[in-house]
Amino acid sequence: MKRGRLYLVPAPLDFGCAVQVPLAEVLPAGTIAVAARLTHWVCENAKSTRAYLKRVGELQPLALPMQQQDIVELPREVHKKGDHAPAAFDARSLLKAALQGQDVGLLSEAGMPAIADPGSSVVRAAHELGIEVVPLVGPVSLLLALAASGLNGQNFAFVGYLPQEPAARTTRLRELEALALRTGQAQLFIETPYRNQALWQALVQGLKQTTRLAIASGLTLPDAVCRSAAVMAWKQQPAPVSNDRPAVFAIGP
Amino acid sequence: MKRGRLYLVPAPLDFGCAVQVPLAEVLPAGTIAVAARLTHWVCENAKSTRAYLKRVGELQPLALPMQQQDIVELPREVHKKGDHAPAAFDARSLLKAALQGQDVGLLSEAGMPAIADPGSSVVRAAHELGIEVVPLVGPVSLLLALAASGLNGQNFAFVGYLPQEPAARTTRLRELEALALRTGQAQLFIETPYRNQALWQALVQGLKQTTRLAIASGLTLPDAVCRSAAVMAWKQQPAPVSNDRPAVFAIGP
Repeated sequence: MKRGRLYLVPAPLDFGCAVQVPLAEVLPAGTIAVAARLTHWVCENAKSTRAYLKRVGELQPLALPMQQQDIVELPREVHKKGDHAPAAFDARSLLKAALQGQDVGLLSEAGMPAIADPGSSVVRAAHELGIEVVPLVGPVSLLLALAASGLNGQNFAFVGYLPQEPAARTTRLRELEALALRTGQAQLFIETPYRNQALWQALVQGLKQTTRLAIASGLTLPDAVCRSAAVMAWKQQPAPVSNDRPAVFAIGP
Repeated sequence: MKRGRLYLVPAPLDFGCAVQVPLAEVLPAGTIAVAARLTHWVCENAKSTRAYLKRVGELQPLALPMQQQDIVELPREVHKKGDHAPAAFDARSLLKAALQGQDVGLLSEAGMPAIADPGSSVVRAAHELGIEVVPLVGPVSLLLALAASGLNGQNFAFVGYLPQEPAARTTRLRELEALALRTGQAQLFIETPYRNQALWQALVQGLKQTTRLAIASGLTLPDAVCRSAAVMAWKQQPAPVSNDRPAVFAIGP
């Protein structure tokens, strides 16, 4: 039997935000058309998948009504620990529909699945099963933030979350700063929104005066903030982040 | 006077390819609307900017006819050496129109400006001049490739091009492989298309049997290839890359 494909379906970046961005502002018509056509989903969260499909359905009729969509959540263990390490989770059983010829969509709550979000176990399983993987175009906060930072787009790394404990966080920050200054490689990281301001203070206090520090907050929202300056310039300004919306942080020479 | 904004305008990924992708497949309506409204451009190449505007104009009337668009190229020195290093190039003079209140678009030949492409000097100049920077959503080959690889999307690096000289290339490859296996950080890199097959041979011959090697070629094109497998599995297969279309390579545990 001909296998279905696994589509990596991007979601808007307004998850959990007070404002909703019109879907057509951030998703190509091509992506919206595929999302409307799919009827089988593997996702981070079933409720947010239905909310996403509702928004898609307002632009283009869904192939099947909501109640008939087949929506499977990644298990809780993946939510907690992530599934990016090889052998973290065997997702092959989630792709039965694709083996039976159905196209399947992989969806996370915001942005691109499998990037700073669960989903890579499903992609690896697809490759193992000979299921074609098709990534669709949509917003990726990390790359919007990097482009808007003016930092090195020829050599950069995203390192996820920093340690929560202040001393360990400062150690890790200085390690990343030293790497960025020695190699020129921009270093990007994120934080759980309610700790954004604490991280910002740690950055402004812990980094060298001349290190460039960039922030992108509320990307794609009407009042998004993208700014980039040397640490010494930031010291004279109020924190440009809030604790109620996602932000991406980046440092470099 | 109120300053204009600097929009980072993504282009489709089909530059130099035999097939053209319909713009609406890969750019949100919101991005196309901004591109049609802009009349001032800083770009990698004026000819490809006009070709891009022609495609935009087929979907939405341009605010000004082509001959009246103000299109400024980044200087040749930037093309050769890049502008990602701080102080590589002072781009402030390219943003005069923005200081005079005009919105300006930054455009590269394919994908997102300032990512694996020139443009970061213009973004840094905008921040220095207090010009708001607005990144627009569009295709970014690196992130499509990473999501489709099943490699670690919580910790990854893009390192640009590898050395051309075979011995130096192998040394660099083993260094990147060791880093990826030790830290779990996926390593992404690219090559000038006509050397894709040579790089592929070096990867299959030089990496460990169990290292995961992923390839994404012709992203967003109808016959795109996204595949990911252990090196030992690749050894039994023909090279999945061609020398006539862009590809992104990634390795990890």
